[in-house]
Amino acid sequence: MSYKYVYLFSEGNGSMRELLGGKGANLAEMTNLGMPVPQGFTVTTEACTRYYEDGRQIAPEIQAEILEYLGKMEEIAGKKFGDAANPLLVSVRSGARASMPGMMDTILNLGLNDTVVEGLAKLTNNPRFAYDSYRRFIQMFSDVVMELPKSNFEKIIDEMKEAKGVKMDTELDADDMKAMVVRFKEYYKQEKGVDFPTDPKEQLMEAVRAVFRSWDNPRANVYRRLNDIPYSWGTAVNVQMMVFGNTGDTSGTGVAFTRNPATGEAKLFGEFLMNAQGEDVVAGIRTPQTIDQLKNVMPEVYEQFATTADRLEKHYRDMQDMEFTIENGKLYMLQTRNGKRTAAAALKIAVDLVDEGMITEEEAVMRVEPKQLDSLLHPQFEATALKAAKVIGKGLAASPGAACGRVVFTAEDAKEWDARGEKVILARLETSPEDIEGMNVAQGILTVRGGMTSHAAVVARGMGTCCVSGCGEIAMHEEEKYFELGGMTIREGDYISIDGSTGNIYGEAVPTVEATISGDFGRYMAWADAARTLKVYTNADTPRDAAQAVKFGAQGIGLCRTEHMFFEADRIKAIREMIVSETVEARKAALAKLLPYQQGDFEALYEVMQDRPVTIRYLDPPLHEFLPTKEEDIAEIAGELNITVEKLKQVIASLHEFNPMMGHRGCRLAVSYPEIAEMQTTAVINAAINVNKAHPEYKIVPEIMIPLVGERKELKYVKDVVTATADKLIADAGIEMTYKVGTMVEIPRAAVTADEIAKEAEFFSFGTNDLTQMTFGFSRDDAGKFLDSYYDAKIYESDPFAKLDQDGVGKLIKLAVRLGRETRPDIKLGICGEHGGDPSSIEFCHNAGLNYVSCSPFRVPIARLAAAQAAIKAKKA
Amino acid sequence: MSYKYVYLFSEGNGSMRELLGGKGANLAEMTNLGMPVPQGFTVTTEACTRYYEDGRQIAPEIQAEILEYLGKMEEIAGKKFGDAANPLLVSVRSGARASMPGMMDTILNLGLNDTVVEGLAKLTNNPRFAYDSYRRFIQMFSDVVMELPKSNFEKIIDEMKEAKGVKMDTELDADDMKAMVVRFKEYYKQEKGVDFPTDPKEQLMEAVRAVFRSWDNPRANVYRRLNDIPYSWGTAVNVQMMVFGNTGDTSGTGVAFTRNPATGEAKLFGEFLMNAQGEDVVAGIRTPQTIDQLKNVMPEVYEQFATTADRLEKHYRDMQDMEFTIENGKLYMLQTRNGKRTAAAALKIAVDLVDEGMITEEEAVMRVEPKQLDSLLHPQFEATALKAAKVIGKGLAASPGAACGRVVFTAEDAKEWDARGEKVILARLETSPEDIEGMNVAQGILTVRGGMTSHAAVVARGMGTCCVSGCGEIAMHEEEKYFELGGMTIREGDYISIDGSTGNIYGEAVPTVEATISGDFGRYMAWADAARTLKVYTNADTPRDAAQAVKFGAQGIGLCRTEHMFFEADRIKAIREMIVSETVEARKAALAKLLPYQQGDFEALYEVMQDRPVTIRYLDPPLHEFLPTKEEDIAEIAGELNITVEKLKQVIASLHEFNPMMGHRGCRLAVSYPEIAEMQTTAVINAAINVNKAHPEYKIVPEIMIPLVGERKELKYVKDVVTATADKLIADAGIEMTYKVGTMVEIPRAAVTADEIAKEAEFFSFGTNDLTQMTFGFSRDDAGKFLDSYYDAKIYESDPFAKLDQDGVGKLIKLAVRLGRETRPDIKLGICGEHGGDPSSIEFCHNAGLNYVSCSPFRVPIARLAAAQAAIKAKKA
Repeated sequence: MSYKYVYLFSEGNGSMRELLGGKGANLAEMTNLGMPVPQGFTVTTEACTRYYEDGRQIAPEIQAEILEYLGKMEEIAGKKFGDAANPLLVSVRSGARASMPGMMDTILNLGLNDTVVEGLAKLTNNPRFAYDSYRRFIQMFSDVVMELPKSNFEKIIDEMKEAKGVKMDTELDADDMKAMVVRFKEYYKQEKGVDFPTDPKEQLMEAVRAVFRSWDNPRANVYRRLNDIPYSWGTAVNVQMMVFGNTGDTSGTGVAFTRNPATGEAKLFGEFLMNAQGEDVVAGIRTPQTIDQLKNVMPEVYEQFATTADRLEKHYRDMQDMEFTIENGKLYMLQTRNGKRTAAAALKIAVDLVDEGMITEEEAVMRVEPKQLDSLLHPQFEATALKAAKVIGKGLAASPGAACGRVVFTAEDAKEWDARGEKVILARLETSPEDIEGMNVAQGILTVRGGMTSHAAVVARGMGTCCVSGCGEIAMHEEEKYFELGGMTIREGDYISIDGSTGNIYGEAVPTVEATISGDFGRYMAWADAARTLKVYTNADTPRDAAQAVKFGAQGIGLCRTEHMFFEADRIKAIREMIVSETVEARKAALAKLLPYQQGDFEALYEVMQDRPVTIRYLDPPLHEFLPTKEEDIAEIAGELNITVEKLKQVIASLHEFNPMMGHRGCRLAVSYPEIAEMQTTAVINAAINVNKAHPEYKIVPEIMIPLVGERKELKYVKDVVTATADKLIADAGIEMTYKVGTMVEIPRAAVTADEIAKEAEFFSFGTNDLTQMTFGFSRDDAGKFLDSYYDAKIYESDPFAKLDQDGVGKLIKLAVRLGRETRPDIKLGICGEHGGDPSSIEFCHNAGLNYVSCSPFRVPIARLAAAQAAIKAKKA
Repeated sequence: MSYKYVYLFSEGNGSMRELLGGKGANLAEMTNLGMPVPQGFTVTTEACTRYYEDGRQIAPEIQAEILEYLGKMEEIAGKKFGDAANPLLVSVRSGARASMPGMMDTILNLGLNDTVVEGLAKLTNNPRFAYDSYRRFIQMFSDVVMELPKSNFEKIIDEMKEAKGVKMDTELDADDMKAMVVRFKEYYKQEKGVDFPTDPKEQLMEAVRAVFRSWDNPRANVYRRLNDIPYSWGTAVNVQMMVFGNTGDTSGTGVAFTRNPATGEAKLFGEFLMNAQGEDVVAGIRTPQTIDQLKNVMPEVYEQFATTADRLEKHYRDMQDMEFTIENGKLYMLQTRNGKRTAAAALKIAVDLVDEGMITEEEAVMRVEPKQLDSLLHPQFEATALKAAKVIGKGLAASPGAACGRVVFTAEDAKEWDARGEKVILARLETSPEDIEGMNVAQGILTVRGGMTSHAAVVARGMGTCCVSGCGEIAMHEEEKYFELGGMTIREGDYISIDGSTGNIYGEAVPTVEATISGDFGRYMAWADAARTLKVYTNADTPRDAAQAVKFGAQGIGLCRTEHMFFEADRIKAIREMIVSETVEARKAALAKLLPYQQGDFEALYEVMQDRPVTIRYLDPPLHEFLPTKEEDIAEIAGELNITVEKLKQVIASLHEFNPMMGHRGCRLAVSYPEIAEMQTTAVINAAINVNKAHPEYKIVPEIMIPLVGERKELKYVKDVVTATADKLIADAGIEMTYKVGTMVEIPRAAVTADEIAKEAEFFSFGTNDLTQMTFGFSRDDAGKFLDSYYDAKIYESDPFAKLDQDGVGKLIKLAVRLGRETRPDIKLGICGEHGGDPSSIEFCHNAGLNYVSCSPFRVPIARLAAAQAAIKAKKA
């Protein structure tokens, strides 16, 4: 045997996580530390990979190696597998590199059969314990390995209790358990057509196979996608000698954390049950005792456990989550790992560990998942109310936070209801830019259509408003103002609650609690800021968003979408006038009406941002987005515009596009209608001049960003319009003011010709939403229909619109960075797509050498932390 | 003066075409050869570029230099500019590097004013001549330099003739001419508000300025775009001493070719007019004499001209197009250039020159414009009938050739009318795949919507059928079966004629003549084949197209679009059944119905192609293309499919896409529905097995092409389905057969990850239609709306869908070639987009190191010649 696929716990150590999985590595480490760990072995992650390579077969040599190690285990334990006189029983558990709840559960008591159970009964002098263990094993094995639903076994138990006239499992005696085993086995045979396996080695091999198989089950695949865990990693399998917490009153089992995982308080936290196996703690039939009470029950064991816990925390230099069992008064440690914790706890623990001298500030920065910060910034459901609430449906977790309110079905209604003091949830088939004011006042937004990057999702994230999008299960009747979901009919005014962090929808009011930011937050974020080199800007279109972002630490605006300013009622009319204009003069007249609004918007932004950079993107969407689509609106708006309905319809038809994503938008509008760029430049420059006059200390340097450029001459054409306009205004004002003109790099041709484009552009901002669409050749609005097949087939493991595709899109970005800097070494480089708020994408940006990332205001703290972690990781590497 | 912007003819030579333009360089060359050329100077193309750089100003130093050279010219001529006693008159003509009809015409007789004309009258003792020259000059200068319409001057002439009661210009005497000058100048002042310029130097400078300005007029810009001439080249200006063909009976003027430009016959060909200026020859008021007749009129001059012509042809080693003037019995050469010629003449001349030992075979290969070959392959209008026909409208020249027939408005009607022996033109708003059979029988296709790459255009080119697309002027009433255009109403059954090489539409029958391929063709193409290294494949979906392509020299099929096979009536039902299937089983059952058709199609293709490679692309279009859109069709088809109308509408709605170009199509279909790829593989392999059984000598190696791949794993997923299916069929048949699996590289991500993709792909075929769309980020269906602004602004100078964008798309192709070969050195690389038939794009493909280009059958000869020219050019460089 040339290759080693199995390790005894004593052969491994804590650094071998890749090979042994987290659980296996930690069991090995505890073993090495001389802690009381029931012995066993780990089948490596490489064996799992090999299993898949071999067409879902465990190769004979690996099977042989497993049995060889089983032999070694028998020697250590002084017991024998399948030996009725002195039986070795084992647990089998999955254990991937990262903890993965989607995978196989534990199987306990493996090694029992009709003979061994008799021996166990004699040996322990406890037939009820023996048969209880046996029936539990059959149940778990059937469920987890053979996929027979657990509930069917529960049904048999219920029937037996009814027949006997009892309520609790504990009221069943040894004979009942024996009878239960017989019924379980009958049921198994009836379903599977074969007898329940009696050979313990066969049981073991089946269990190992089941763990490997569970790596590829749908739950695991979804979990991996959501948590960026590569499919290629595989899982290890841990086979460990059973110890029993259910042998009597000096036995028990429990779980505990070295610190409180909810608050971070530095005090042992956990619970235990005497005379019980692990699953009983979870099942909640008996109420467990708190870990403190163990002090009274078994003071010495408590002392030993507390010391071990302390030692583990110091050893791992992090809060530990431990499982333990007491067998006849003796403590066994079954697992330790860095404990999951809430954001608040994570912050407190990190800060405390620094104060305790256990870790450095940089290490502390690495200890909080950036995405976790979300929950500190948004309202959450009140925990006990949430437990009682019933989920009636699930959509996409499009914008985090929790919201509760009365349902309305139009943006108009949202505004009206809000005005009279009602909290509302705006439910729509899908939102459009015209809904913006209604979205603004809603507690939360719920849509039937659209993905993570739909209009609703993007706008909601920008506002920090909770949003659940794309809940296709909803049967929506917008006109009639009701929808059906999960068997309920929800009408206008009914209370619902939605959770934008999970996608859950509740058909009732679930109270929320406000976000609270503790004092640790500022201290912690200062450490992060000290570590990072990437600047963090924000995408903000309004003074409100900008102020919010500044409060969260934004260092500038990386993307101000000017078109969002155009949808307000008084402005959209002028835009529409512009669109239906037939001459340049008429177009200029319409634009002149917009100018004061636009200039006022920019002035307000400059007031908020002071001398932080403000990057203003020129008009981007196709013009048809500003025109009505419904028959009745067309009639009304034609009237407003003082043109015939036919004429308006003609304009709408002439603006129709087969592929609007690839149509007449972005700088293409400014090439066709340079007067738009003229007006926007006038607004930008005049606003800067005015605010600078009032606050000479700001020294505003406007940054003008031309979208959708694909060719140097195209940028130059628009830039010439900008500079001619700006230079004249500045000269007329008789002041000194500089400004920058740059571009979005969001279409592939811009990336491959970045050396040329950099001749005109003083900065690049990577628009990775569009760049991802064009590079993959699929639109985010349409990809939803087939991306699921792609996840199922493991072609893509994550949503490229959420996590930057480093192999494809990233290659284009790196190319553009290199070419851009060749032409203009001091070119300013940033990113303003959705990816600017995604930690793994931010790490890419750091490594690609960008100067800044820009994200929605509520993502700013996340981005600051992610940027810090990226810098620390890069320094280490 | 540090930089030289002006050259005397005697300072230049024939190789200075870039600097002096074609006309200037050839005048210099003839001067050096000692030929009788009226002396003069050339203002360089660099002066033109400088003019634009300086904001459309002729820099003072250039003006000074022009006047300096005017002085040198006066010295040489012994005459003085503006000197009434001995006046120098000049012609001013534009002259770009390549001949450009879009630009400024000639201005003759410049240097005349009220004083000089008197002098000229005295000097020549011919007042009528002098005033006729003067009025011509005023007319030309006003028209060409000052943009006063020529027709308004003609009106004045007509009024004068009417007043005098005469019909011919020649009936007007010297006094009439004098009066005409007065009237012309009055009109000029009335329109321009200033007097006609009297200073000859001012006249000259205005004329030079007008030439520079004309470089940027709309006609010139369009011409450049159509002929791939860069804007940056600029034009030169030639100022030449006037000689007069209109001084009397021993004077004259003419144009001649050293060989017949229509047939290529090796015999002087041309015409002349005695006592006339150049413009009279063109104006056609008097009928010119053939050049042969000059032998009788002025034998010595003829002899001198014939000798000169012969010398020029030998000197330039190509057929010459010359202008000459005889002034008082003395011959002057005004211009020579390589003559434009028809395709037939080009071929004959090239072959004759080889046979005469004047050029090599390789040089001959360089002498025919590949695009010209088109006219040898398609019917053309009968020349005299064409002259008499009236153009009623113009669309895009979408597929070359001429067609005449009776108009029908539906594909159904086309089939019916054809069946009863009528020749038809199919006129449609736009065509769709369902029209394919009607298109197939039509003489020509006319559409209102759609560009050069619309469905109609692509399919027509594939069929070699004449097509005029995108004639937006047509008011189409499809339902009522008539359309209006150019003031005419064309009803079903009316005769029209269309010219797919010019886009012209005629409201009458214009007889056509069949294409004739002379014996020279085969000999010539053999020389081309010997020179080229690129293979030429064809895009063909039917045995008919394939056979046509083989006749034209195709070496394989580079793209067989399987979906085109699905639109026939009996097949589309099965496709629709597949689309509405709700289970894999139902889908497989529907696919099973398609299998025999598909297999039969492939068998027929293999029979035609024998052992030439056949590349079969798997299903590509989004499924909604197969479903009806009209209410009445939906009802009918729901009935056929035996489902409810509501259900069918549901399916249609579920397949709706916002951006179909970036939606669920290409290999994405095979990922979602692997059974489609299974069926197609079964058809491909079974067909190959069957045909190989019948013809063991063919040794068919099917090439299976997976479209729209963006990621290695995606290709592998589909390839696994293909190989599993194919290997089993081959094993079951008990034969030996190999096949290849490759992919289209048509989305940017495929290009940037080509090293990865090449691990799975045995060949790449660049799908440059889609690659262009994705790289530029605009769809060809929508770009029409703004590309005109881009051409006007000189941002793009050619249509990237017609001529490959080498700077952007080309960079991605080169990257993919490099990466692909790094992984798989022997990977087969080709192109199958529209660009595969475009000569400049073919040159790029040669230089990028591709193995083949694939184009529609009627483009195959063009591609063969273009590939040969590319190879020869590359060898030289």
